[in-house]
Amino acid sequence: MLIIGEKINSSLKTTAQAVDARDEATLVDLAKRQVEAGANMLDVNCGTVEAAKEPETMTWLAGLVQASVGEVPLCVDSANLEALAAGLAVHQGKAMVNSISGEKERYQKVLPLLKQYGSSVIALGMDDQGIPGDADTALQVGIKLVSDLADDGIAFDDIYFDPLVRSVATSPEAALETLRVMRELKERFPDMHLASGLSNVSYGVPERRHLNRSYVVLSMGAGLDAVIMNPFDKTMIELILANEVLLAKDRYCLKYIEAFNQGRLSD
Amino acid sequence: MLIIGEKINSSLKTTAQAVDARDEATLVDLAKRQVEAGANMLDVNCGTVEAAKEPETMTWLAGLVQASVGEVPLCVDSANLEALAAGLAVHQGKAMVNSISGEKERYQKVLPLLKQYGSSVIALGMDDQGIPGDADTALQVGIKLVSDLADDGIAFDDIYFDPLVRSVATSPEAALETLRVMRELKERFPDMHLASGLSNVSYGVPERRHLNRSYVVLSMGAGLDAVIMNPFDKTMIELILANEVLLAKDRYCLKYIEAFNQGRLSD
Repeated sequence: MLIIGEKINSSLKTTAQAVDARDEATLVDLAKRQVEAGANMLDVNCGTVEAAKEPETMTWLAGLVQASVGEVPLCVDSANLEALAAGLAVHQGKAMVNSISGEKERYQKVLPLLKQYGSSVIALGMDDQGIPGDADTALQVGIKLVSDLADDGIAFDDIYFDPLVRSVATSPEAALETLRVMRELKERFPDMHLASGLSNVSYGVPERRHLNRSYVVLSMGAGLDAVIMNPFDKTMIELILANEVLLAKDRYCLKYIEAFNQGRLSD
Repeated sequence: MLIIGEKINSSLKTTAQAVDARDEATLVDLAKRQVEAGANMLDVNCGTVEAAKEPETMTWLAGLVQASVGEVPLCVDSANLEALAAGLAVHQGKAMVNSISGEKERYQKVLPLLKQYGSSVIALGMDDQGIPGDADTALQVGIKLVSDLADDGIAFDDIYFDPLVRSVATSPEAALETLRVMRELKERFPDMHLASGLSNVSYGVPERRHLNRSYVVLSMGAGLDAVIMNPFDKTMIELILANEVLLAKDRYCLKYIEAFNQGRLSD
């Protein structure tokens, strides 16, 4: 399971303050603690700074974070093309881009960056009509986006498709439908990855982390193998480690027992 | 989700001591606290007392427990036919029997009790060859057992089939195979229930509750709707409540928000 730590994101107040103040110690600490907690990739987003300054801020931030966590790669995250390019230019090794989508303009602008830098990419299951409102449309949008990326030379192994689940607070069938979309896409493109963020499925529900946790476990059963999440949610990390055993991804519990021996499972 | 509290079982030391001492206060407290924690049925087992005394002990214990929890029904649990009969005889309303199986002698002896008392039943997926060692055999054993029960007049709605998952410590594919058996049986017999205990899947693994929790979430995705568990595992209860929302069993989060309002979700 690829666990992408979400904390270096300026939409979070403490991160925004540290970015604004160029407070390196706080950001380095946040990066290191995420990796210690179980993240094996770190998302880096400074989208709240003014647009003209975002590229140079991303250059500084991506460089700082990567230098602090050694081999752990970054998921360079921005709606601003220049900021994406700036983060990729400074990144050592293979990065991930967050994100491309089926929206024509976004697709055409991000694709060259993927090719130039050999990056993997989060591919959001939406197009110029927005986020699909039902499973059949979501499936069609997903098939077209993944097929287009493959036709345009992106390896399936570099595609992390995110089906953009809706909230169960307003759409009771949303999770079930997205699980079906994941299963069908995975059957059609077995070498592609499935990714998910956790800000949508539980939107509007109190104590939403319980829904997020169950959603990750269920989704892993449908093929999810990457998640953008808070790695300080220890219960979630424990559930993911356990679920990899159940799904025969961690055969004979080797990784699970290593985590146990390192004291990373609560008692 | 039917949550069957497992704590009134004399294989647990404190319960055994309370049963031996006829310590009613301890047992009543244990019963009430399980219901408060989220159990909507209570398993009652006193199988460690000597065989000749088990029926009278069950009469006392089942009567005591049921009187203490009002409307909550019991799951009368014994390998001893006379003890099952004694528990059912004293039970008010519809009880569950734990258990019948495809073992010929057990099947023939328990079936009349189900008919006499109109009980529902845990049906263990095993026969005189023991617990199936692979998914195809498990499926055949399950189909035969459920078909036999139905042919013998037990309503599908009264059958709680337990596929008896093996441990992932020694069989890495065990959970995946059992999930497939659950899905295929549920497709064949949509009105039947699926039940599971949690002593098997994680047997031999440290900090096994994490595996048990993930297993229940995944299994609910495959149709599980009853579990025999420790209701004091608050994280498990929270995951189950959340999962019922995701699986559209708790539409618009009504039960989930009720639990939140009652302070039953941790913060």
